[in-house]
Amino acid sequence: MNQSMKFCTSCASPLNIRLPQGDNRERHVCSECGEIHYQNPKIVTGCIPEWEDRVLLCRRAIEPRHGFWTLPAGFMENGESAQQGAARETMEEANARVRIVQLYATFNLPHIDQVYMLFRGQLLNADFSPGEESLETCLYEESEIPWDELAFAVVRETLVHYFSDRKQGAFVPRVGDINRLPGAGRDYQVTML
Amino acid sequence: MNQSMKFCTSCASPLNIRLPQGDNRERHVCSECGEIHYQNPKIVTGCIPEWEDRVLLCRRAIEPRHGFWTLPAGFMENGESAQQGAARETMEEANARVRIVQLYATFNLPHIDQVYMLFRGQLLNADFSPGEESLETCLYEESEIPWDELAFAVVRETLVHYFSDRKQGAFVPRVGDINRLPGAGRDYQVTML
Repeated sequence: MNQSMKFCTSCASPLNIRLPQGDNRERHVCSECGEIHYQNPKIVTGCIPEWEDRVLLCRRAIEPRHGFWTLPAGFMENGESAQQGAARETMEEANARVRIVQLYATFNLPHIDQVYMLFRGQLLNADFSPGEESLETCLYEESEIPWDELAFAVVRETLVHYFSDRKQGAFVPRVGDINRLPGAGRDYQVTML
Repeated sequence: MNQSMKFCTSCASPLNIRLPQGDNRERHVCSECGEIHYQNPKIVTGCIPEWEDRVLLCRRAIEPRHGFWTLPAGFMENGESAQQGAARETMEEANARVRIVQLYATFNLPHIDQVYMLFRGQLLNADFSPGEESLETCLYEESEIPWDELAFAVVRETLVHYFSDRKQGAFVPRVGDINRLPGAGRDYQVTML
């Protein structure tokens, strides 16, 4: 539970953590007006930008994982579709235009309350450049992917399936869970549906 | 934007709606501590519970759409995967146990800031009964589906694709957008990816 949630957004009174009537888990409930402040997972939407036999990666100019490579992706916004969000993030992070063609990878990250939705996106042309949140943008063939410098497990897992599927000649949508293992390291466990 | 968000959850000071530095859309920003209160789409996770050639529907005991039929589904919770949430909702609404086998339908509903993720789920046995939020639960063959008494467009669209795919012998994951059309009615427009 988010411990920084202390006051009601509607009336500014203190929040209590308690079980609302008819509910089966504790929520932040206003001590005065009774409003229940739910917290739910966020969607991170992004894409695998394709150009011939290469994919476009971005080197991160922001934390977390400054300097590491990632697929363009970010939090989905209210009022847009996940596809629109994926194209928007690709424009923001790589100044690149894509046509979204398939929802390819859906990954749950329960330890950080996120769900990644990563689409395949066809680059409309070879124009791209780093956006404000990127240091570099680069098209990589499979053999050139900087596997040891990828920012996130979800990026690695998605790219592994992606290149495997491309060899097979068919992109099969994937769904999986990524759980961070206990300890200070970056070890994780993947379970595919 | 949620107009009921007036006060900061961290310090109870008034929120202003303004463009944070480096951002490209207006947010609720605290006038005192500067905290940005983001709002993002919520995931509704659920399943198509399968038993032989039938699917399990629930008649809603709650608003909206009290008395209409739906697939078991509800807001995904922090700390769970979408698959776990789909199985949990099936237990809560229909007292039924399922094995989740495939992410079948993903629908954006941008007008209400929701993304539906509907899985195929195999019922482990034929034991089911209405949960607290259901009036009735019933297994339906395709010819028996109460098409005119379905609660939501997303349920109708998912079932149409589902039965069509079953005739073809292969379930192809679907992604689409459902937009409510202007006016007081329930008319909507569907765009599939």
